[in-house]
Amino acid sequence: MNKQQLVAAIQSSKSYLCVGLDTDISKLPAHLKQHPDGVFLFNKAIIDATKASCVSYKINTAFYESMGLKGWEAMEKTLHYIPDTHFTIADAKRGDIGNTSAQYARTFFETLPFDAVTVAPYMGEDSVRPFLEYENKVAIVLGLTSNKGAEDFELQQAGGEKLYEKVLRTVSSWGTSDNLMFVVGATQASELANIRNIVPEHFLLVPGVGAQGGSLKEVSSYGMNAQCGLLVNASRAVIYASSGEDFAVRAQQVSEEYQQEMALYLNK
Amino acid sequence: MNKQQLVAAIQSSKSYLCVGLDTDISKLPAHLKQHPDGVFLFNKAIIDATKASCVSYKINTAFYESMGLKGWEAMEKTLHYIPDTHFTIADAKRGDIGNTSAQYARTFFETLPFDAVTVAPYMGEDSVRPFLEYENKVAIVLGLTSNKGAEDFELQQAGGEKLYEKVLRTVSSWGTSDNLMFVVGATQASELANIRNIVPEHFLLVPGVGAQGGSLKEVSSYGMNAQCGLLVNASRAVIYASSGEDFAVRAQQVSEEYQQEMALYLNK
Repeated sequence: MNKQQLVAAIQSSKSYLCVGLDTDISKLPAHLKQHPDGVFLFNKAIIDATKASCVSYKINTAFYESMGLKGWEAMEKTLHYIPDTHFTIADAKRGDIGNTSAQYARTFFETLPFDAVTVAPYMGEDSVRPFLEYENKVAIVLGLTSNKGAEDFELQQAGGEKLYEKVLRTVSSWGTSDNLMFVVGATQASELANIRNIVPEHFLLVPGVGAQGGSLKEVSSYGMNAQCGLLVNASRAVIYASSGEDFAVRAQQVSEEYQQEMALYLNK
Repeated sequence: MNKQQLVAAIQSSKSYLCVGLDTDISKLPAHLKQHPDGVFLFNKAIIDATKASCVSYKINTAFYESMGLKGWEAMEKTLHYIPDTHFTIADAKRGDIGNTSAQYARTFFETLPFDAVTVAPYMGEDSVRPFLEYENKVAIVLGLTSNKGAEDFELQQAGGEKLYEKVLRTVSSWGTSDNLMFVVGATQASELANIRNIVPEHFLLVPGVGAQGGSLKEVSSYGMNAQCGLLVNASRAVIYASSGEDFAVRAQQVSEEYQQEMALYLNK
């Protein structure tokens, strides 16, 4: 799925919700925790329950890698279970020298055929470039993240602007709004108007709504552009809405609540 | 293996060579390329051939991930084959918000029991902290990398100093020289004297010698401290010294050449 198809999906479903599958085996409902295929079965139920109210799924690779081989198997099965109508993101935050980044691009665009992967900018252009060389694939580069540590470097001065501003300005010159998006944390909503000045056309992947405390209303009012331009991610708030056997029902309710609120902002 | 044991290994083997297992299936000798276990067999032969002249192995996770499940299996087998006498590094360049970094730490310190993992600093303290909470494990944080893209952000001004200097100064305050090391590219040898002023005690992992053009002599003269404080990595220069069936013999010769040169600098 490419950017144009994502825009169409947002328009037809009246949602810009991305559901984050940060599936932690220790947090699964009891009946799935012991099951050999528990993580996939959990994800499958979440996908079935939420696909009508979201347009994207983000798989946080860390939670799968930590389980070793079984985790990669669960990630693979989950990716293949997500319908083609949804934009798939590997939240992997990769980035290395050119020949190594090319291997990561192969991992997340070919071996595991995601539509997009998150990329760390620290190492500069040749670390991002290999992700931009695939047609109809997207690199989502870290801009301003939602965690406290954003203050350590991202929000520090870097030659007359903040480092994250320099990152947005510089990285956006390496590609187009078709093959590049940016991660911008919802807990930094006050910075979103400024960010829209720097990258007016690009989609922003916005984590931090829900468990991390960001406000959907603020994010939408400061961050939306003519094509929507937002993918708002909710992970724990949706997938762990209940820790019991009704987890999928509750996930459906919460994702529908997000969708209904989003429909209001899209209609404005 | 912890830092003290690494220092002892360097003293007894008169080597601070780290061999980088960036094993690319497309570059294997013909007789291994078709073998179902080719990557592991290649690594096994390289390890047998080089273990007397190096003190560390660095597995570049990208090359394994790009092969999917089979790759993770090969990585696991390779890690378990490396002798306990050698310091093992997952070159994974991970980093995310706290609860996700904790999963990555689990991946590379427990599920795959490496001694160290490389970490990207962009997201700040809480993205690095989980890697520092393991006893006898090391986070190797990116300082100044060996690629051209280092000019884009790492070498840019950031409030009166270069960004990489700020990173070294800030990150070094989060841990000790026992649980923190830094990546400093060999192609930036002229910066090494300066780096030693900022982090006099820390080990530096230095890639970029060999295929990327860095000089072992310069790195050693500017970078060495009283405990050696250097791990110089060579990947392609060692493992692809020959593309034929004699690859292990040639790898042994090249790694012995490094070791002999290193012994000279250690004796100074």
